Amino acid sequence: MLTAGVDLGGTRVRVGVLEGARMHYWEERDSEVLKGPDHTLSIIIHMLERAKETMPFERIGICAPGPLDYKLGVLLDPPNLPDWGLVPITDVLQKHFLLPVRLLNDANAAALSEAASGAGKGYESVWFTTVSTGVGSGYVNDGQLIQGARGCAGEIGNMIILPEGRHQSNLNPGALESYVSGTAISAISRERFGWQNGAKEAIERAMAGEKEAVELIDETMTYLSIAIANIVHTVNPAIFVFGGGVMTQHDYLLPILAEKTNARVYASLQRSFDFAYAVHGNEAGVLGAAVYVRELNLS
Amino acid sequence: MLTAGVDLGGTRVRVGVLEGARMHYWEERDSEVLKGPDHTLSIIIHMLERAKETMPFERIGICAPGPLDYKLGVLLDPPNLPDWGLVPITDVLQKHFLLPVRLLNDANAAALSEAASGAGKGYESVWFTTVSTGVGSGYVNDGQLIQGARGCAGEIGNMIILPEGRHQSNLNPGALESYVSGTAISAISRERFGWQNGAKEAIERAMAGEKEAVELIDETMTYLSIAIANIVHTVNPAIFVFGGGVMTQHDYLLPILAEKTNARVYASLQRSFDFAYAVHGNEAGVLGAAVYVRELNLS
Repeated sequence: MLTAGVDLGGTRVRVGVLEGARMHYWEERDSEVLKGPDHTLSIIIHMLERAKETMPFERIGICAPGPLDYKLGVLLDPPNLPDWGLVPITDVLQKHFLLPVRLLNDANAAALSEAASGAGKGYESVWFTTVSTGVGSGYVNDGQLIQGARGCAGEIGNMIILPEGRHQSNLNPGALESYVSGTAISAISRERFGWQNGAKEAIERAMAGEKEAVELIDETMTYLSIAIANIVHTVNPAIFVFGGGVMTQHDYLLPILAEKTNARVYASLQRSFDFAYAVHGNEAGVLGAAVYVRELNLS
Repeated sequence: MLTAGVDLGGTRVRVGVLEGARMHYWEERDSEVLKGPDHTLSIIIHMLERAKETMPFERIGICAPGPLDYKLGVLLDPPNLPDWGLVPITDVLQKHFLLPVRLLNDANAAALSEAASGAGKGYESVWFTTVSTGVGSGYVNDGQLIQGARGCAGEIGNMIILPEGRHQSNLNPGALESYVSGTAISAISRERFGWQNGAKEAIERAMAGEKEAVELIDETMTYLSIAIANIVHTVNPAIFVFGGGVMTQHDYLLPILAEKTNARVYASLQRSFDFAYAVHGNEAGVLGAAVYVRELNLS
């Protein structure tokens, strides 16, 4: 069965058509979100119509940044998609194409793509985490995406790592995202040392051996390792897969993270789970959304 | 199909036979663990033989305290069952009865019993937590028990709540169990106030309004609420079910915990998940073990 995947992002819209594990069609464009949801929706419809001419897909999966309600198929005021709150996105596409349409979180879609045909392939359970501007994750157990009762499984950016700690936006005080996201590393390195070039600069200074940068990155990876160890003791996944600009910048952070995580789990669990980089990059959302609707039992 | 459930504990062995959701047979005895594993195993075999005479079960599920390897069917040096490390418990029963036998963690069995026919019945996902001497938990999603790659899903006693915090036995510094277990509450109230009668005394003093006890219990429930909120942002279960002597003593702690947890989740998630007491008590392990083997696809 051919299925279409759509990745609706704050800057780009990506559309692909999948057969089995292979992408047979690909198009991407600016999402032009400043012109409003109706405009972007018409771009998506246009792209899907063009795809359908050559690749007659039977279902559509669409992923977008959270928060969203996957059961209702609506976005809930995502910060990077202004005015999309409560736009009935799946309804609109469903009525236009007369096909089954499902909406899911973009980190969940990426998790599914890595589990189905990426770094997590062949593992019984996969925990995917992306660290870039924010922190997002997704969890696939036995081939099944676990979204949670309200679709908020994997919202580990709000996991409390240090009670009464650093406070950022609408997160809990001491939440993971306030320490390890690109935004947080950038803010902390600016406050402490006056560096102006974000997480990239802090990581590169640490790689060059600058003492204060090494300490900052060590601290950052300690906090992330607490979150990962907590996930080990909560659902014990077989592999942790990492994407996003912060974690994948050079091959520097992941070995540090793996060592720190193993130091925080029961002895019998040490080195019993793997760490890997995501492989699907910009295609992850489209792939995952298309896999998601293919696997759904829609009878 | 009739299935047998066995609950092997440090003090009692319980055996039951289940048909559908109903227990049709029940026997319990001292486990006499000081006489060694062979002796206790012969008690279990004897109890199962007697059960089989009137209720010819086709499968056997046995639960025991962790750590254990559910895939290999062996215990891994559980503190309350000395010398049981690596005893091939499922092999022995399998060879004796010539029936399929499976081993699982007792907190996981209790979770399954609450999801199948207890406080979690009808919920799409159930997180069960027992707080007594230690802290254990189990997670059932869509009717399926999620045990994790090494069977350590639900080992939240080792979740880090306060980095570099209180240190107890082989747990992480600042682990949940070091703050909220009966053992921990007992130790903390003895250290701080000289109270000698454990968690029970601390809770009763708090219920009577004694200021320092109220503060201690408030602190304890704050730590537990951090763990529960972290689980919300990790797998977002529909209901949290609590068992064990500490949490179920009077109806005092659970409302405090619910309020504190809701204060630590995203606004859109507040009051979107339920809290309840476990209903199966001493039968939970037997019920869950029998349900577990009934649901297995053994083809």
